Amino acid sequence: MDEVDVVVVGAGFAGLVAATDVLSAGRSVVVLEARDRVGGRTETVRLAGAELEAGGQWTGPGQDELARLASRLGVPTFPQPAAGDEVVIRPDGTAVRTPAGLVDALDTAAFEELTEAMAALDALAGTVDVAAPWQTPDAEALDGSTLESWMQAHIASSDARTALRITVRGIFATDPANLSLLHALFYVAAGGGWMSLVGTEGGAQQDRFEGGLQEIALRLAADLGDAVRLRTPVRRLAHDAHGVRAEFDGGSVRARWAVVAVPPTLAARLDYVPALPPARDQLTQRLPGGSVIKFHVVYDRPWWRDQGLNGSAFCLDGPVSVTYDATTPGRGPGVLTGFVEGADGVAFGRLGQQERGIRVIEVLVRAFGDDARHPTSYVDRDWSAEPWTRGCYGAHFPPGAWTQLGPALREPVGRLHWAGTETATRWMGYVDGAIESGHRAAREVLA
Amino acid sequence: MDEVDVVVVGAGFAGLVAATDVLSAGRSVVVLEARDRVGGRTETVRLAGAELEAGGQWTGPGQDELARLASRLGVPTFPQPAAGDEVVIRPDGTAVRTPAGLVDALDTAAFEELTEAMAALDALAGTVDVAAPWQTPDAEALDGSTLESWMQAHIASSDARTALRITVRGIFATDPANLSLLHALFYVAAGGGWMSLVGTEGGAQQDRFEGGLQEIALRLAADLGDAVRLRTPVRRLAHDAHGVRAEFDGGSVRARWAVVAVPPTLAARLDYVPALPPARDQLTQRLPGGSVIKFHVVYDRPWWRDQGLNGSAFCLDGPVSVTYDATTPGRGPGVLTGFVEGADGVAFGRLGQQERGIRVIEVLVRAFGDDARHPTSYVDRDWSAEPWTRGCYGAHFPPGAWTQLGPALREPVGRLHWAGTETATRWMGYVDGAIESGHRAAREVLA
Repeated sequence: MDEVDVVVVGAGFAGLVAATDVLSAGRSVVVLEARDRVGGRTETVRLAGAELEAGGQWTGPGQDELARLASRLGVPTFPQPAAGDEVVIRPDGTAVRTPAGLVDALDTAAFEELTEAMAALDALAGTVDVAAPWQTPDAEALDGSTLESWMQAHIASSDARTALRITVRGIFATDPANLSLLHALFYVAAGGGWMSLVGTEGGAQQDRFEGGLQEIALRLAADLGDAVRLRTPVRRLAHDAHGVRAEFDGGSVRARWAVVAVPPTLAARLDYVPALPPARDQLTQRLPGGSVIKFHVVYDRPWWRDQGLNGSAFCLDGPVSVTYDATTPGRGPGVLTGFVEGADGVAFGRLGQQERGIRVIEVLVRAFGDDARHPTSYVDRDWSAEPWTRGCYGAHFPPGAWTQLGPALREPVGRLHWAGTETATRWMGYVDGAIESGHRAAREVLA
Repeated sequence: MDEVDVVVVGAGFAGLVAATDVLSAGRSVVVLEARDRVGGRTETVRLAGAELEAGGQWTGPGQDELARLASRLGVPTFPQPAAGDEVVIRPDGTAVRTPAGLVDALDTAAFEELTEAMAALDALAGTVDVAAPWQTPDAEALDGSTLESWMQAHIASSDARTALRITVRGIFATDPANLSLLHALFYVAAGGGWMSLVGTEGGAQQDRFEGGLQEIALRLAADLGDAVRLRTPVRRLAHDAHGVRAEFDGGSVRARWAVVAVPPTLAARLDYVPALPPARDQLTQRLPGGSVIKFHVVYDRPWWRDQGLNGSAFCLDGPVSVTYDATTPGRGPGVLTGFVEGADGVAFGRLGQQERGIRVIEVLVRAFGDDARHPTSYVDRDWSAEPWTRGCYGAHFPPGAWTQLGPALREPVGRLHWAGTETATRWMGYVDGAIESGHRAAREVLA
């Protein structure tokens, strides 16, 4: 049996960052990862000459932890192409080509309502205590209601509500019905506001990374060397006042502390001996992952650019919510990426990949025209089907969870410490939040 | 390795009933139970000469599955003592002794609002399709909101809202903020309406069982004999088109079908090979158990009866929600039982049992007077802390879960079938529902 100072469960960004900090402080560390790769909810896949990002891919202003890490590891960014018109598919299924987005696709009253609703939610988000959402003024009332209820009460236009619902899917990969209003506000506050979350230029989809976002995780893992063990799913964490034993099939690691850096719903499935206290267990029972299927459609070349289109479509009649140009600049084929999220993601997950491809291409044809009809490849990833993720982008808090159980989110249980983007106070659900959490967990065990 | 027709995971009522039906049909069965006892969320504990029911204990009109089973096994009922006055502790902390309950404890306007709210919720519950709540008229709107939001919109009196909140805790062991309105309505419909759920005479707390409710499970297990294996927590279910292998520490059982009869949050923690489809996994990520600590306070004798009190207190200022006389008729000491539920249950779970006892006895003294101050014993059970339950009374559906994922609740995955009270269409959350589900799962695998 190996003995180290710290055992880290999970080689996503949170776990790799925590391990790096522990090692930098002169302590020994082992990272146990269930998959045959590192990077968690990011993965770069090479297909048909294209470099496809199956999971997280963007960054933008305010994601300072990620910027700092990428800069230290020498992974440069390039801008998400935004030049050109985008397409909006209206709730009635008609497509509108526009340089300015929703303002040209909704009627004036609906657009004004949508704008006012986002401003009102931004203002409410400004009242949230991101380090302790349960201490927000009026927290219990905000947490007793869903975002959907707020929308029903504050937005009269059905089209405006639909547009906000699709926007929410794009951010949370779940529907407003599932979200505590307090959680939605927290998340918006943690990510710098609605415009920051939804925007390309100036927003969270502004930039991509050379070689893909996973490249940063790969470099962290390379620096950690043998400390990272792949194909080693942890089954049990036995813990007492002296230390932790992490058991996996065929072996175990003994450590003074553990950092559990996997999504809450997977953390819930480990066998803790002794069992976790009620508040912690009840919390992880209540933090489901979102539902998202991310697709890539590969074409000989990015033909939409010839037509002055930027590859972005915002679809108000489902099942796709939004698409983007995912072509690697300067080389390779043309690629469109996009997402089927929330309730549509669940329904899509019941279909086979071939049927999903047919339905996605139908949407692309409606948005961009007949050129979309004949891709060279279609590939998608249902993150809810991944045994070692079981939902993306992140977990969300349903009503009641923050105010009743929030303090258990980061509170260590003896020598068990909790990391992962869901434990972040800024950019929760993003890689930036994962990095913040890894640093914080490392500080805790090094203290 | 053993080979049987059906392997059942969990020896609660659902699993024992399913196994009994399989055996009666001439097929072979094994029941694998993690605990050293059967009965799931029921257990009779002998302490200080008293017979205490640590978990479920009552039945009442409409619980026909339970009545039929108890009758077949020869376990008679006796009435929950109801004669005498009860006590209501008002939201301001003052106690009122009354023969008629809340009508004497709330002001007239508040009481009328409460009554009207329950009638309105009953009427809405009448629209619910209990076999398929997602097909209820207006299901998405009902499922997009919390019961708390409905209460805020429909009940002006703060005292009436408090009374309904405590009532909801008594039924669901969670707070109205956590409940999808659609789920609350479904649950009320499945249990015969509000008055059925909250009532003693004529309601779900009308009768108890000689020897305790667990006695029925013990007799089922006795008839199953060696087929029930205790201290055998299942870790993994490997399944394919031909059968299922249930793996536990040190062994496994091979079967043609499996019935998984544990609460959803525990079903979620098994290692399925191959992994479950996204909809099923996402559903179990969203079905947390409630939080309840059930206490028993033992006295030399049931002294409250001398004062014309029936031992029931309904406490609107927490942390206890409700108490009942739990004395075994004709013998033994006097016993009061009661519950700390929902958010108060979570907070109570952070205290030690001694501190909990002090706080419970403070409430009993306020309700019943100084005689309550000196019990011979205090004992409680935090069902959220039980590794093989992790929450009671049952799981609840937060907003969005029924409409987005409900069809996955009972849908078999290959040769894996799902039982447990959470899969019932009547009396979900009750032993009656567990029995219904056991019969249904057995029919599925025998078909």
